[in-house]
Amino acid sequence: MTGEHAFIHALRAIATDPAARRLADDAAVLQIGGEALVLTMDTVVEGVHYLSGDPPADVAWKLVAVNVSDLSAKGATPVGCLYSHALGNADWDAAFLAGLDDACRRFAIPLLGGDTVRMPEGAPRSFSLTALGTGRQHCPVPSRSAAKPGDRLWVSGTIGDAGPGLAAALGRLEGPETTIAALLARYRRPSPEPRLGVALVPLVHAMMDVSDGLLVDALRMAEASGVGIALDAGIVPLSPALVAIAGETVEARMAAMTAGDDYELLFTAPLEHTARILEAASALDRQVTPIGSVEDGSGLSLSIDGRQLSLPERLGYQH
Amino acid sequence: MTGEHAFIHALRAIATDPAARRLADDAAVLQIGGEALVLTMDTVVEGVHYLSGDPPADVAWKLVAVNVSDLSAKGATPVGCLYSHALGNADWDAAFLAGLDDACRRFAIPLLGGDTVRMPEGAPRSFSLTALGTGRQHCPVPSRSAAKPGDRLWVSGTIGDAGPGLAAALGRLEGPETTIAALLARYRRPSPEPRLGVALVPLVHAMMDVSDGLLVDALRMAEASGVGIALDAGIVPLSPALVAIAGETVEARMAAMTAGDDYELLFTAPLEHTARILEAASALDRQVTPIGSVEDGSGLSLSIDGRQLSLPERLGYQH
Repeated sequence: MTGEHAFIHALRAIATDPAARRLADDAAVLQIGGEALVLTMDTVVEGVHYLSGDPPADVAWKLVAVNVSDLSAKGATPVGCLYSHALGNADWDAAFLAGLDDACRRFAIPLLGGDTVRMPEGAPRSFSLTALGTGRQHCPVPSRSAAKPGDRLWVSGTIGDAGPGLAAALGRLEGPETTIAALLARYRRPSPEPRLGVALVPLVHAMMDVSDGLLVDALRMAEASGVGIALDAGIVPLSPALVAIAGETVEARMAAMTAGDDYELLFTAPLEHTARILEAASALDRQVTPIGSVEDGSGLSLSIDGRQLSLPERLGYQH
Repeated sequence: MTGEHAFIHALRAIATDPAARRLADDAAVLQIGGEALVLTMDTVVEGVHYLSGDPPADVAWKLVAVNVSDLSAKGATPVGCLYSHALGNADWDAAFLAGLDDACRRFAIPLLGGDTVRMPEGAPRSFSLTALGTGRQHCPVPSRSAAKPGDRLWVSGTIGDAGPGLAAALGRLEGPETTIAALLARYRRPSPEPRLGVALVPLVHAMMDVSDGLLVDALRMAEASGVGIALDAGIVPLSPALVAIAGETVEARMAAMTAGDDYELLFTAPLEHTARILEAASALDRQVTPIGSVEDGSGLSLSIDGRQLSLPERLGYQH
């Protein structure tokens, strides 16, 4: 057990309130005055979660977006956020704030409060954001642990752009300018759509967001639900930009499915909801793709063109 | 305008939702399902808000307590918290978690979620906590801006212990062991009482907590309310430990009123509520003391034994 694992294990022993969902879901869910309040908090650290040279407006955008992605995964409509800012260079801070404002407007999540702190000279800075949303009325808030054998497995959007996007940010990727720009944008400005999460709530069994990598997140869903998940690597949707830069080989698909930072929805639903799911996504101009099935058993299995693939050693970002 | 001032000014321009209370109150207040949800977030940074050598359990306790103090100042009952942990040494982290658990139990504020992040090697760490509470049913959530001429000014508990408590933590204070221990405890383990805040809601006009220093916080209340506040320095309650170590001279009282870190309630109320206020505090075994009055005009004036005192240059911790 790593230090981080041991620590999270110890945290779980403390967080025994049912609203905490054993710290095993994307968000906490608290009942307030007959509404389900969905709560999530994410922190980004300079040199760990973002690069010192990243545009500050993008760092702020992403901080809001990753929290909104958690709300979306619980089918919650954003209602507000609080954030804690570590002061640094005034120009950097002003640009950060402009990005924060952009993202708060884009995701309709007003800034309600927070804290501003000074840091010791030269210390790496960190920024925390708490996002609040309200669950869809008269529906339970979906968890990642409710996948049922017989369900179809779905993913929204496309998978794997953020990996080469990071490489581009590091100056390690060559290619046509528009392709590079598209991948970089996926890495720096993820764009979850909470309205899609809300629309899917009555149609899904399990739902979560893909943040650490499709394979590791699908495995977590299987484990949390006590089921097996069979994923067809050949139909995992890739963006035109990714295909242009990396192709569609098994290796390229494997890289895409383990890259992480997608902030797309991964969900399971009964087969008979297929048409309604496609409709709901289409009404919001979002793509959803069936990529596998839920089975009795346990763990994740992977196939392509009907033949089994062994799982790669690294399934994604593992804490 | 300092960098921090300019930044907070820019933040206010973004946080235009009424729930944000212009970022000028102790907490945000959001209406959810007919309930008032009170939200606050505080961050502590190693080397800025706590000393590297401070006992980790106390750092965690104080992080919870300062947030609970904000809830208490809004008359809110704690319902839960989320917190973000920067990983470091495993033993330190385990001790921190034990202190967090203690405080969450003491204040009945269950841990619901949060985040755990790694830091670059050797970086100072920071910890953020978001606390949620619900306002008293059928009562507006008190603000710091509602003081009215004719009100009496009150403070809970005693003022000024944390100043010498910090000196003791730095090894710069000599005195009897029990006295030192009492002052140190006030600095390291503040103990707000949300039930007092809740009980006071129907009786007060303005309410806030004293965190940066009695004088600076009273001035802020006067400014936010558009009134003058006259404070009688001679009747500001001091603890026996503080009197034992520092005496009761004007200088000692001035130091106490500007030290900060008290986490007591500062509130104003009509004279006719005096008996009920004393009763409410007594029922909770807490002390409340009238220390001044609210008047037409503006700013803070200070007197002792009937003669005016000029305000010290430094009124407390100013951001």
